Amino acid sequence: MNNNEISIKIGNLLDEVRNKKPLVHNITNYVTVNDCANILLAIGASPIMADDIKEAADITKISSALVINIGTLNERTIESMIVSGKKANELNMPVVFDPVGAGASEFRNATTKRILDEVKISVLRGNMSEIKFISGLESSTKGVDASESDVKTGSDEGIDVAKNLSNKLNCTVAITGATDIVSDGERVAILENGTKMLSNVTGTGCMTTSLIGAFCGAGSDYFLGAVSGITSMGIAGEIAFEKAGQIGTGSFHIAIIDAISNLTSEVIKNMAKATEI
Amino acid sequence: MNNNEISIKIGNLLDEVRNKKPLVHNITNYVTVNDCANILLAIGASPIMADDIKEAADITKISSALVINIGTLNERTIESMIVSGKKANELNMPVVFDPVGAGASEFRNATTKRILDEVKISVLRGNMSEIKFISGLESSTKGVDASESDVKTGSDEGIDVAKNLSNKLNCTVAITGATDIVSDGERVAILENGTKMLSNVTGTGCMTTSLIGAFCGAGSDYFLGAVSGITSMGIAGEIAFEKAGQIGTGSFHIAIIDAISNLTSEVIKNMAKATEI
Amino acid sequence: MNNNEISIKIGNLLDEVRNKKPLVHNITNYVTVNDCANILLAIGASPIMADDIKEAADITKISSALVINIGTLNERTIESMIVSGKKANELNMPVVFDPVGAGASEFRNATTKRILDEVKISVLRGNMSEIKFISGLESSTKGVDASESDVKTGSDEGIDVAKNLSNKLNCTVAITGATDIVSDGERVAILENGTKMLSNVTGTGCMTTSLIGAFCGAGSDYFLGAVSGITSMGIAGEIAFEKAGQIGTGSFHIAIIDAISNLTSEVIKNMAKATEI
Repeated sequence: MNNNEISIKIGNLLDEVRNKKPLVHNITNYVTVNDCANILLAIGASPIMADDIKEAADITKISSALVINIGTLNERTIESMIVSGKKANELNMPVVFDPVGAGASEFRNATTKRILDEVKISVLRGNMSEIKFISGLESSTKGVDASESDVKTGSDEGIDVAKNLSNKLNCTVAITGATDIVSDGERVAILENGTKMLSNVTGTGCMTTSLIGAFCGAGSDYFLGAVSGITSMGIAGEIAFEKAGQIGTGSFHIAIIDAISNLTSEVIKNMAKATEI
Repeated sequence: MNNNEISIKIGNLLDEVRNKKPLVHNITNYVTVNDCANILLAIGASPIMADDIKEAADITKISSALVINIGTLNERTIESMIVSGKKANELNMPVVFDPVGAGASEFRNATTKRILDEVKISVLRGNMSEIKFISGLESSTKGVDASESDVKTGSDEGIDVAKNLSNKLNCTVAITGATDIVSDGERVAILENGTKMLSNVTGTGCMTTSLIGAFCGAGSDYFLGAVSGITSMGIAGEIAFEKAGQIGTGSFHIAIIDAISNLTSEVIKNMAKATEI
Repeated sequence: MNNNEISIKIGNLLDEVRNKKPLVHNITNYVTVNDCANILLAIGASPIMADDIKEAADITKISSALVINIGTLNERTIESMIVSGKKANELNMPVVFDPVGAGASEFRNATTKRILDEVKISVLRGNMSEIKFISGLESSTKGVDASESDVKTGSDEGIDVAKNLSNKLNCTVAITGATDIVSDGERVAILENGTKMLSNVTGTGCMTTSLIGAFCGAGSDYFLGAVSGITSMGIAGEIAFEKAGQIGTGSFHIAIIDAISNLTSEVIKNMAKATEI
């Protein structure tokens, strides 16, 4: 598959999102939750945030995808994540998991392990520090952002990390960074859209994860869903940088959401830098 | 009362908000809470968010209006909603209730019922799916957004729904949608400001509810408070659409808050499309 | 020390923040948390938000500064504030405390007292109502914003309040308002940057507190850290007002974050209005 073929597939899946308006259930953190809701509306999906154990499964039941994000993990919502995850599994609904800060505390590590043990994940998306930690490899997490020593995502080592973890967990693994890698164990995609400035706005990772939820909720190929979510955010970052990069990170932040709301399959075909290897 | 008379009343009430700077206590969701606080500041009110049972009633006591919003309902804050609601009732302070997602889960349904049973509500604001659900009518809620089949708010049927529920609950009922309907059982207002784009930004409903809180906190006619909050948001939506509709949903979102902060009684007189029938 | 000397010191400390990228642990409210994270990224620091008792101390341990903000206080996170505060004390890490709404409820009062009793605070930042309340003086708190009768921060009385409380608590006390006062008991700085419009956006106080956390995390003089955080926000407010003050409070809000992301030691040297007396 060459670059062009993937781009067409991503564009088609975007059209599906816009047609189907999948309801995406997010159990997520309170730092970036507003951006996650707005980016889902911008891509054409419908967001719902619900994290109380008394309704989590009910809300999952009416949704098309579940996004679990442990950015501001707390004991109250862990059970909701598990219960919703199991409900989604029962319904064959995609579950996208963002292990924010895995490696940064015992609590996050144990919770990440528990979620991976008890819920069948469709797409795991993290930065290189988080993914290496989950892989049992040496990583040097510094809070919720990837360590600079961990971010060489484009290397052969990065590809191996993604592929091996994908086989181990039997899910699509997406590592985002300067270059992004997505693997479902067999297929590997290298994605090169984006801009360094994306790391100067909080929640661009969380938003990417929610976008993956939207794409997975509109199609059945979750590898393509991950590729599409990441590529959409990368392209939006480039467009936003062009428009607002010189103005500052506040305007850049808003321009990202603008760009997603204006994204078309045509723009994707022209701008996507996705390669399957 | 013709259109012009209502517009003058709304404009006068806006001036009251700006003069009195009512403190509005919000027990609300963590998705749109920042926008609710900023929209209250923009209209000239003062926001306070406090949801712990140990201070909820104390904070209500120093406020001029209470806004209850169940967008991210959880067990911890339900008791605070009830206790604050009762305190507000005791003090004859207006209570505005936004039953976000009523119909979407048993938990939301039961909580909505409990709040309506235990607290005397001044204004109930929801979309057509939520209001129909509360009325015991057939509705087809899809998450937190109104179903397309439910949104014919301008019809005679919509007017009946608002009027009947208003009489049943003895409060002002506001149904927002393409056309908005407000009724206090006797009076009915049809509001036609706004733009479809408002549904592409999360929290425009929540912000409207908080604005109603500001207007009700500055005057004693809660029917007029509801009409004013909804008309203000509708006009802001039109101004924002004119300025930023072509740029994207991120910029449109910011332009809504800009427009509310620039709103004057003059602008309202020129732009309001409110009719009492 | 004249104005120019302080400005150079602030500029140098900004360069340190940009070089060291201190990880700042925030246990804060859900209203303004996104802005706090984004302002920390904009100044060049790295934010982490974690409030569960099971990881609070672990996250503090890997951080360079701790920020405690009681804006939406709840029972669950108070223990985390205490535990993280004690851990930071143990590690000689700076703790910045924002007693949002102290005076507004018994619960906030008791919690403020408990934090001050059990944690050694490095910088206490509040508005005049909050600081007067903590000082045991007559204050007239109205919610989370300073009462107009309390805001004469530039007066000799204000200087005495800051100095006395600083000596009593053995920490730097910063009172923000039209004029800001910072004292560590011996030194007193009067800061005159800023614009009235900052009070029309929620969270500018919280963002200032988080900025102080970033500066304190990059240097060892916490008096200078407080002066630097407040001056940075004041200058950003002036730049934002120049750019977007006429557009509205939404655009002004975004322009504040833009201005912080563009802030340089050169800009500080040119614009700072800081005097040590």
